[in-house]
Amino acid sequence: MAKKPNKLKARLPRGFVDRSAADIRATDEMLSKIRQVYESYGFDPVETPAFEYTDCLGKFLPDTDRPNAGVFSVQDDDEQWMSLRYDLTAPLARHVSENINEIQLPYRTYRNGWVFRNEKPGPGRFRQFMQFDADTVGAPGVQADAEMCMMMADAMEALGIPRGQYVIRVNNRKVLDGVLEAVGLGDEDDAERRLTVLRAMDKLDKFGIEGVKLLLGDGRKDDSGDFTKGAGLDADQIGMIVNLIAAEASGINQTAFSEHIDYLFDNHPAVSSAGADIGELLHLVKASGYETDRIIADPSVVRGLEYYTGMVYEAELLFPVTNEKGEVVQFGSVGGGGRYDGLVKRFTGRDVPATGFSIGVSRLMTALKNLGKLQTANVVAPVLVTVMDGDTEALGRYQKMVQDLRQAGIRAEMYQGNWKKFGNQLKYADRRGCPIAIIQGSDEREAGEIQIKDLIEGARLASESTDVDNVTWRESRPAQVTANEADLIEAVRGILDAQAEDRRQANGD
Amino acid sequence: MAKKPNKLKARLPRGFVDRSAADIRATDEMLSKIRQVYESYGFDPVETPAFEYTDCLGKFLPDTDRPNAGVFSVQDDDEQWMSLRYDLTAPLARHVSENINEIQLPYRTYRNGWVFRNEKPGPGRFRQFMQFDADTVGAPGVQADAEMCMMMADAMEALGIPRGQYVIRVNNRKVLDGVLEAVGLGDEDDAERRLTVLRAMDKLDKFGIEGVKLLLGDGRKDDSGDFTKGAGLDADQIGMIVNLIAAEASGINQTAFSEHIDYLFDNHPAVSSAGADIGELLHLVKASGYETDRIIADPSVVRGLEYYTGMVYEAELLFPVTNEKGEVVQFGSVGGGGRYDGLVKRFTGRDVPATGFSIGVSRLMTALKNLGKLQTANVVAPVLVTVMDGDTEALGRYQKMVQDLRQAGIRAEMYQGNWKKFGNQLKYADRRGCPIAIIQGSDEREAGEIQIKDLIEGARLASESTDVDNVTWRESRPAQVTANEADLIEAVRGILDAQAEDRRQANGD
Repeated sequence: MAKKPNKLKARLPRGFVDRSAADIRATDEMLSKIRQVYESYGFDPVETPAFEYTDCLGKFLPDTDRPNAGVFSVQDDDEQWMSLRYDLTAPLARHVSENINEIQLPYRTYRNGWVFRNEKPGPGRFRQFMQFDADTVGAPGVQADAEMCMMMADAMEALGIPRGQYVIRVNNRKVLDGVLEAVGLGDEDDAERRLTVLRAMDKLDKFGIEGVKLLLGDGRKDDSGDFTKGAGLDADQIGMIVNLIAAEASGINQTAFSEHIDYLFDNHPAVSSAGADIGELLHLVKASGYETDRIIADPSVVRGLEYYTGMVYEAELLFPVTNEKGEVVQFGSVGGGGRYDGLVKRFTGRDVPATGFSIGVSRLMTALKNLGKLQTANVVAPVLVTVMDGDTEALGRYQKMVQDLRQAGIRAEMYQGNWKKFGNQLKYADRRGCPIAIIQGSDEREAGEIQIKDLIEGARLASESTDVDNVTWRESRPAQVTANEADLIEAVRGILDAQAEDRRQANGD
Repeated sequence: MAKKPNKLKARLPRGFVDRSAADIRATDEMLSKIRQVYESYGFDPVETPAFEYTDCLGKFLPDTDRPNAGVFSVQDDDEQWMSLRYDLTAPLARHVSENINEIQLPYRTYRNGWVFRNEKPGPGRFRQFMQFDADTVGAPGVQADAEMCMMMADAMEALGIPRGQYVIRVNNRKVLDGVLEAVGLGDEDDAERRLTVLRAMDKLDKFGIEGVKLLLGDGRKDDSGDFTKGAGLDADQIGMIVNLIAAEASGINQTAFSEHIDYLFDNHPAVSSAGADIGELLHLVKASGYETDRIIADPSVVRGLEYYTGMVYEAELLFPVTNEKGEVVQFGSVGGGGRYDGLVKRFTGRDVPATGFSIGVSRLMTALKNLGKLQTANVVAPVLVTVMDGDTEALGRYQKMVQDLRQAGIRAEMYQGNWKKFGNQLKYADRRGCPIAIIQGSDEREAGEIQIKDLIEGARLASESTDVDNVTWRESRPAQVTANEADLIEAVRGILDAQAEDRRQANGD
C-alpha cells in the first residue's frame, strides 16, 4: 500500500494518557469505596465544571515559574480569561460564594474529577489527573480538621491498605509561620525567603535531613549537577528548623506534642498557640479511637498550595515500592489538605472558615497495584457467536442467538469483523479471552443444532501434557459439545458456571 | 462590615454549570444502567484524555462559523496546538491508530466523559456536556450498525423509557449523497450547496416540512426577523427532496423501504444500493425481534458531524415536554451516531471501517426528569449529633458517638458550625433534612443518657392539626425519647427503620 506523504501521526500531547479497561474498572471500584466512606460521614456530592474565570481560581499553585503560571488558559469571546481548574478547592470556594445565600452552612460536600496542570510532565507526573475531595465550609473549629483526618484514615482502610501501612500526618501552617518568625524571617520583605524555607522543609521525604540542611543553607547540587539555590540561613537558624522537622523522625512524644514545640521554641506565642491546636486535634481523634498508629503530628508537613491558613494534613503510605528507575523507595503522600479560611472571603468579604482534603486518585491506584489490592479480573469476557455464513438470513439468526444470550443476562457478541476467515474468529476469541464460542454451519443448522466450544477447558486440555498436576484436582470436561439450538442458553450457562467453579477452586476460595 | 472595593465577583463563564447532589446521583444511576447494557453486549471501557493535538481531532463540527471553529485550543510549549475534545469519536480514532498493532480488531469499547464546544451557549445548550459512546472499530458489515441500533433501543428501555415513547431512526449518508446527485448537485463546486441542503433537511423536526421547503429554496425568516439564506433549489428539486423526507411522516412502508426509495429516485444506482443496506439492517434487527415500534428507516436523518460516511442513526424521544418558553414540543433526539469509515484511515492509511454512537447524557437526564423516571430521594440525610458543650473533652465524646454510628453503617455527622446558638443547629438539621438529632447536655451526660429527636415524626406531629387524614393510617411515635448512652445505635436504628417503613407505606409499596 502506498504511504500517503502527509499522513497524520496519531499521538497524544505529553503528560496525557489513555486509560485501559483494567484501569477504569479499578478506578471506579476505588471511587465507589471512597464515596461510601464520605457518604457515611454525611457528605453529599457537588461538582463544578472544568473551566473557571482565571481570576476566580487565583494563583495558589506552588513552583510556577512558567509564564502561564501552571494553568491552561483561553480567552473568551468577551476577552475575559478562563482557565481549566488546577484543583477542586478553588472552584468550590467560587461555588460556595456564588450561592452563599442559598447554602446552609456548614456545607459538607465531596467531588471527584479531572484537574489540569500546565507543567512539565515526568514519570508518574501527568498534566491531567483525578482528584477526590471532601470539604466542610463554614466550620471554624479544630473538630472539623480532626474529622477530615479520621475520614482520610477510614478511606485508606476502605481501600484495603492495612493499618500501619499508612499514616495521616498533621501540622499547622501557623507553627511554620511562628517558626519563621522565631528564626528572624518575619518581615514583609522576607516573603520569598520564607517560601524557599518552606519548600526546603517540604523536601524532607525526598532528600533526607542532610538535603534539607543544604537547601536551608547555601544550596544543593543534585545527581545531574543541577544546582538549587538555598535560603541562605546561618547555622543557628538551620539548627532550629532541623530540630523541629527532625522531631517526628526522632520519635516525638505525640501526647506531649505541644509541650515539645513549646520547649523547642521557648514558648514563642504564635508557635505555642498553633501547637496547642494540634494537641487538641490529637486528643479529639484519640477520643474516637484513632491512636498514633493512624494519625500523628509532624512539624515537617508543609503542603504546597498557598491558600492554606492553618491546619494542614496529609496521608502517607509507608510501604516500600520500586520506582521507574528500579529503586526501592517509600511510596509517600497520596493526598492531603488543610484549612483555607481565606478562599471564600476573597469573594464575599465575610469570614467563612473551611477545611478539606484531596486524594490523588491516579497516584493512589499505582500504590494499590503495588500492594496487590486491585482486583479487576472479575469481569468475564463475552461469549462469541461465530459467523459461518454472511448472508442476511444467516446473520439474522446469529444475531438472534446473541440477543437471546444477552437477555438471559449473559455477556455475548457476534463476530463483527470479516467472517470469511474462520481462523481469525477463533484467534479473536482467544486474544479477547472469550470463555465460549458458538458455532453453527449449514449442516448444524439443518439439524437444528449448535456446537459450543469451551475455550477455557480447550486451552487447559491443550496444555495438559505439560501440566500433569492440574489433572489431579478435578475431572476434565469435554472441550466441545453439540447441543440442541433450543437449549443454547441452558448449555452456555452450564459451561460458564463450571468455569466459575474452576476459578474459585484455583483461587482456593 | 465595610465592603472591599475590589472584591472578586464569584461567577462562572457562560455555558458552564455546577452540578447538584441530586443531578450527580441521578446521572450516576443513568450511567450505571447504560453501562450494564453495553457490557452485556460485550463492550469494554476505554477512555482518552480531555486534550488532543488539534490536527488529530480534525474539523468535523457542524455550523462552526466562529474563528476557532467551535473548539477550545491552547498552544503547547513546543508551539503545537492542542484542543479540548469536542466529542469522543475523533479521540477514539486517534487511540486506535496509535495502538493499531496491539489492538485486536474488531475493537468494541465504550466510554463516557465530558466534551467541550466553544459555541454560543443557550437554554439547555452548554459548552461542557457529557457523552456516553459505544463503538465497534474494524467492522465492515451492516450487522455492526444493526447491533448499535438495538443497543440504543435497549439502553432507552433500561433507563425506564417505555417502548413506543422512543424510536431509533436509521438512514444512510449515501442515500443523501445519491439524492443530491440525483437533483443535480453532484459536482465538486456544489459542496457548499450540498451542505446547505443537508442542514435544511436536518431542520425537519424544528421547522416542519414548510420550513424545510423555504430553506431549500430562497430562504427562511424566523420569528425574530432573522433571515437564513436558502439553498436556491428550484421547485422540481425541492419536490424530490421533500418526497423523500416526507416519506416517514406520511407513513412509509418499512418492510418495502428500499423499493420505495427506488421508486422515488427511479432506481438511481447510488440511492438504490444505500437503500438496500437500510433494508438489510431492518431485516437483521427484525430477526432479533426489534420491530418498527423500536427501529425504523427515516430518510430525513442527517446527523451533523461531517465524518460520517454511511449508515447514520439517532434515538428520538416521542413524548411531549414543555420547553423553557412554556411551549409543548416533542423532546427530540437524545443521541445518535453512524459509520465513520475514514477516521482511522486519516492516520494509518489503511481502511479501518467503524461505527458507533453517542448518548447525550445531560439532555437525556432532562428527558427522564420530565418522564418522572428519575428517583434520587433514596439517600437518607445523616443523623446529626448536636454540640451542647464546646470544650475538647465534650467534643471528643460527641465525635465518638458519630464514629460509632458510622461504623454501624449509619450516616452521621457532628455539628461543625458555631455550636453556641443551639437553635442554629436544629435549623441546620431541618434544612439538611436530617432524620434524627442526638442531644446530650451536661445533665444527660451525668445520667449516662442521650436525647434522641425523631425530626421526621416531629415535623409530622407539628402539622397534624392541619392534616387529619394522615393520622388514620398509623399510630404516631413519640417525637423524642431518652435512651441509655450505651443503647445509642440500637435506638437510632429503630427510629430510622420506622421512618423507612413510613416512607414505604406512604409510597404505597
